[in-house]
Amino acid sequence: MKFLHTSDWHLGRQFHNVSLLEDQQDVLKQIITYIEQNPVDALVIAGDIYDRSVPPTAAIELMNDFVERVCGELALPIILIPGNHDGAQRLGFAASQMKGSGLHIVANFEDMLDPVVISSDIGEVAFYGMPYHDPELVRHAFQSDQPIKDHDDAHKLLAEKICAQFKPDQKHVLVSHCFVDGAMESDSERPLSIGGSDRVSHQHFVPFDYVALGHLHQPQKKGEDYIRYSGSLMKYSFSEQHQAKGMTLVEFNQDGFLSATHIPLTAPHQMRIIEGEMDAILQQGKTDPNNHDYILVRLQDKHAILDPMEKLRKVYPNVLHLEKPGMLIGVDQQLGKARLARGELDMFKDFFLEAKHDALSEAQEQAVSQIIEQLTRQKDA
Amino acid sequence: MKFLHTSDWHLGRQFHNVSLLEDQQDVLKQIITYIEQNPVDALVIAGDIYDRSVPPTAAIELMNDFVERVCGELALPIILIPGNHDGAQRLGFAASQMKGSGLHIVANFEDMLDPVVISSDIGEVAFYGMPYHDPELVRHAFQSDQPIKDHDDAHKLLAEKICAQFKPDQKHVLVSHCFVDGAMESDSERPLSIGGSDRVSHQHFVPFDYVALGHLHQPQKKGEDYIRYSGSLMKYSFSEQHQAKGMTLVEFNQDGFLSATHIPLTAPHQMRIIEGEMDAILQQGKTDPNNHDYILVRLQDKHAILDPMEKLRKVYPNVLHLEKPGMLIGVDQQLGKARLARGELDMFKDFFLEAKHDALSEAQEQAVSQIIEQLTRQKDA
Repeated sequence: MKFLHTSDWHLGRQFHNVSLLEDQQDVLKQIITYIEQNPVDALVIAGDIYDRSVPPTAAIELMNDFVERVCGELALPIILIPGNHDGAQRLGFAASQMKGSGLHIVANFEDMLDPVVISSDIGEVAFYGMPYHDPELVRHAFQSDQPIKDHDDAHKLLAEKICAQFKPDQKHVLVSHCFVDGAMESDSERPLSIGGSDRVSHQHFVPFDYVALGHLHQPQKKGEDYIRYSGSLMKYSFSEQHQAKGMTLVEFNQDGFLSATHIPLTAPHQMRIIEGEMDAILQQGKTDPNNHDYILVRLQDKHAILDPMEKLRKVYPNVLHLEKPGMLIGVDQQLGKARLARGELDMFKDFFLEAKHDALSEAQEQAVSQIIEQLTRQKDA
Repeated sequence: MKFLHTSDWHLGRQFHNVSLLEDQQDVLKQIITYIEQNPVDALVIAGDIYDRSVPPTAAIELMNDFVERVCGELALPIILIPGNHDGAQRLGFAASQMKGSGLHIVANFEDMLDPVVISSDIGEVAFYGMPYHDPELVRHAFQSDQPIKDHDDAHKLLAEKICAQFKPDQKHVLVSHCFVDGAMESDSERPLSIGGSDRVSHQHFVPFDYVALGHLHQPQKKGEDYIRYSGSLMKYSFSEQHQAKGMTLVEFNQDGFLSATHIPLTAPHQMRIIEGEMDAILQQGKTDPNNHDYILVRLQDKHAILDPMEKLRKVYPNVLHLEKPGMLIGVDQQLGKARLARGELDMFKDFFLEAKHDALSEAQEQAVSQIIEQLTRQKDA
């Protein structure tokens, strides 16, 4: 018995004002190709299908095409839950009407307790989806006697409710979107809780045969070999440049969990950081086979450069962000402001040299000096 | 063979900043009660399910509950199309996955040509949904040789495409959201076309056995007895105060269309206009059994009244709008502005009388006169 565990698709996401939809479409195609060539029994998406509770129409159409292809043509069941980026009610519209077709959107607690049961060579496997909700909503829904003050309390209660449904002849898979204590974050996850704690102990999940987690964008296991984050569909921040992206192929045998294998997925544009001096970067870009990647450039040059973005984009057309640490000598602690390494006159000299391809004459330098001095005096007065 | 034809639900609509959701919920319950007591073979909703392409979550939940009850528990098929207020792609998400459950959302032209076939005592009835789309989109979708310059051209083409699918042993129902030429408008419909023509000839629809139309909020037939608007779920403007609201019960026999019967639906709050003088309205309100209706008051009083809304809302708590035609002597054609029937001094005397329960003394009147004169002179200067 095999199934694929994915999460954090964030369809419709923008990155530095660039739409990632075409990249997402490409990666979804890779998933479809994998399924066509490697039959599995189910596909799990552990939340954050969309990037927003009201996703753009194009993202909905992309998801619709995927579902049509996978549930419709390939007849593979999809089990998904809303994450903290999704709107549970919006995503869950007509969920009951979709079940028969193999699209299982578990968006409320009633459906949470009614697992999707997949029959396989090793018997029945019950998939329990735990839709992402605020702890307050969990308390309200279950009129709990126990206090539900944070995500850990909420997950404890929800896991108990689910475990009470276990049938001894079934294997049990949990799908949840949460932050397991001690797991590794990236820059692109939105905090689940402002102020309160969003961490959840992995202990609540131990009774399951496998726990398909979403929320953290780095693939990782936590506590047990069978409690895992698949990681996000693709990189969603430069901090993820060295993270492996893909999905997790989970295999069960008669005894339950057997193995988890990372299946790589590769977005057409990678997100990466290039550090160096302008000339070196421009040189390297000319022969860089992946020069269309989404790039953050960290310029090490210590002198001012005219129109650096324009220059960089001639070789790296998708430079999305530029940092100039070489221009700073540090942050002024008192003022809380970055301080430039070079004074105004040096900066102007750099500019003049670039713009005119010539150095300032002595008279020019003197004139500029005087103007700067005058302006500085006015500013300080 | 019987089915219900409804349209223009506009779930989530606001009226003068008041949410109509509770009224809509009540009317949907009336539909459910009717279906429970009077079995039918299908329910048709001819567009404008929601009031906006991105409806509020509460409207989605209301629709979800309705679908759950009707398709799920009562096992009655629903056939619906998006109207000009709906977002076709958004509404149509996972439509293929819902079909098996009896929820048929016909949101694209491919599904339009693949009818929902209902088997009944008189044989098969094929329901063709024509999702609302701009003419430009119709032209693009069919790469038509004929020019598609307006809604009439678009409907001609779409009706031809559908008629080409007709099977001789089936009856044919069309569901469409459009403005049939010569039909009666209300104040609450959004124009389908700005500038161009939005009118459609009923001739395109003649080959069908029944045409379930949406868009116009007044129940009416057009051209043939079997080409009909059911009208909106409830009143959505004061101009509809005298319109009968409800759904249309359509009956077929072996030969096709037999009868159309109006089934009334009554929102808890009616929308109506009350005209008269303040004192009379306040008197009448005390014994008005429907004093919670949504009311537009047209005050006929010719003198100014302090805080008229506050006074009116003591007897009619849901006065949503107030007009004071009694205060005007007409519209100044040259200035294009309404002119007050009473001068500033008279207005102030009215105000003083109401606020102080006493008339101005001669000295006070003279003082106010002088101030008004002074202000008028300044304004004119």
